[in-house]
Amino acid sequence: MNNAAVFGLGSMGGGMARSLLRAGFRTWGFDVVEAAVAAFVEAGGEAGDTATIAPRLDVVVLALLNAEQVESVLFGADGVAGHLRPGAVIIASATVAPDFTRDLCGRCSDMGLLYLDAPMSGGSVKAAAGELSFMASGHEDAFAAAGTALEAMAERVFNLGADAGAGSAMKAVNQLLAGIHIASMGEAMVFGIGQGIPAERILEVISHSAGNSWMFANRAPHVVDGDYTPRSAVNIWLKDLAIVREIAAAAGLDTPLTDSALEQFTEAAAAGLGAEDDAAVARLYARRAGVSLPGDH
Amino acid sequence: MNNAAVFGLGSMGGGMARSLLRAGFRTWGFDVVEAAVAAFVEAGGEAGDTATIAPRLDVVVLALLNAEQVESVLFGADGVAGHLRPGAVIIASATVAPDFTRDLCGRCSDMGLLYLDAPMSGGSVKAAAGELSFMASGHEDAFAAAGTALEAMAERVFNLGADAGAGSAMKAVNQLLAGIHIASMGEAMVFGIGQGIPAERILEVISHSAGNSWMFANRAPHVVDGDYTPRSAVNIWLKDLAIVREIAAAAGLDTPLTDSALEQFTEAAAAGLGAEDDAAVARLYARRAGVSLPGDH
Repeated sequence: MNNAAVFGLGSMGGGMARSLLRAGFRTWGFDVVEAAVAAFVEAGGEAGDTATIAPRLDVVVLALLNAEQVESVLFGADGVAGHLRPGAVIIASATVAPDFTRDLCGRCSDMGLLYLDAPMSGGSVKAAAGELSFMASGHEDAFAAAGTALEAMAERVFNLGADAGAGSAMKAVNQLLAGIHIASMGEAMVFGIGQGIPAERILEVISHSAGNSWMFANRAPHVVDGDYTPRSAVNIWLKDLAIVREIAAAAGLDTPLTDSALEQFTEAAAAGLGAEDDAAVARLYARRAGVSLPGDH
Repeated sequence: MNNAAVFGLGSMGGGMARSLLRAGFRTWGFDVVEAAVAAFVEAGGEAGDTATIAPRLDVVVLALLNAEQVESVLFGADGVAGHLRPGAVIIASATVAPDFTRDLCGRCSDMGLLYLDAPMSGGSVKAAAGELSFMASGHEDAFAAAGTALEAMAERVFNLGADAGAGSAMKAVNQLLAGIHIASMGEAMVFGIGQGIPAERILEVISHSAGNSWMFANRAPHVVDGDYTPRSAVNIWLKDLAIVREIAAAAGLDTPLTDSALEQFTEAAAAGLGAEDDAAVARLYARRAGVSLPGDH
């Protein structure tokens, strides 16, 4: 039996940790939100302190929000990296810049740790079902050590080669598209509703037409229902599209649509919508145009 | 047996005319390109002159490029509208502005003709298979008269109500999304390739990830293959996204992502790529960034 830990028990990490439990891993969960840890223990998981648990771990999954959290969990005060035994594998699933990943992988290698750059895609429902897609890269030993745990959490694992950083770059490609497609969903819904077409009719027609996207199909229903409970928040895109722009700038590449999408999310956050579901970018468009959306009073 | 005519035997109209033939319609084909008419006759269709044929027609399908062509075919010198018998139905499938559609519908109604605003989605493969989606609106008599012909050409017909113009508005929503998604495909492919990820790997991963779109899945293979044979040309989007902006401007709605996508297509056309497949927007991004695409020398 393998011992695993998941750092970050949010909408993604919570499901990933439960997938590991189902697959027979003895799994510890860590989160700054105590209620998330308590819920995980309730579900059969375990809790403890890093210094005690880390030396027993075979697999560490990082389901964290950003680079700062990854840095802090691995190398901060009482960071987990310093307590792991050599040969343990870190599955790093946060969306971060490829250069940050390469740096982190190098530092872990120097300590005898295996490091898999493994951002994911799929959302919380697929996380809970163990059906995520991982865009993974790293040394073959890291792939081998992470294999069973990845299988427990994944429907598909894309092996993007030995370069830690390639997984993060591929994730950035995905976020570029996903961010633009969420913003275009908002633009299209408000455009169509403003032309007098009912929101649910737009959803129905586009679902069967060439204008469809994974994000449209997933997020337009939130607009139809007027439900902006955050499954993924507007604020996430300020971070993820900033990473895309950072990579693009370093490569001398223009990303005009990404820039425009980021501008909409930034304005939405400035308008007080940052903590709402990212589909609330439609509310920004609606306010600007004086269009009423489902659920508006 | 019903008599039908299709005006415009291009990548869409050619398939639609053949779908009508297969369904048992006696079908005449009209196109300024003589080779297109000859190929249709070879396939079992018929040819003739408008004034002779039009009085015998039950159904007229307009699979034309733009408003100018629609105006000219219906009301130009020897236009078909003046030769049709009362009760004949016009299925108008060009992408045009809703206000133009309403005007045209009014003029046809005054002549005793039925008018169905019926833009389509699906591409040439689905046109040939009789599996298009139609976004249709108009009087119930127009729906009734067009029914059998629509069924022959369509997998789905969305009835958007009695207002001729609603179909065109819905099509504009679809084109807004589709145009943005093609441009975002170009932005993402060049971004990823510039990061060292092979083009076919990006296609494979995105196809199974949240960044996917109908257009990405359909157009990214053209970039992977380095094949810019026009299935749908860059120039189409100058027209279609201009219609979107015209509608948006009249409604006081900002469409920043549409504007950005239109800018990419406009620059691509200015760079000599207007007649290439719309996936060639990726070539514009690649030239700007100095990135090599598959098929580049």
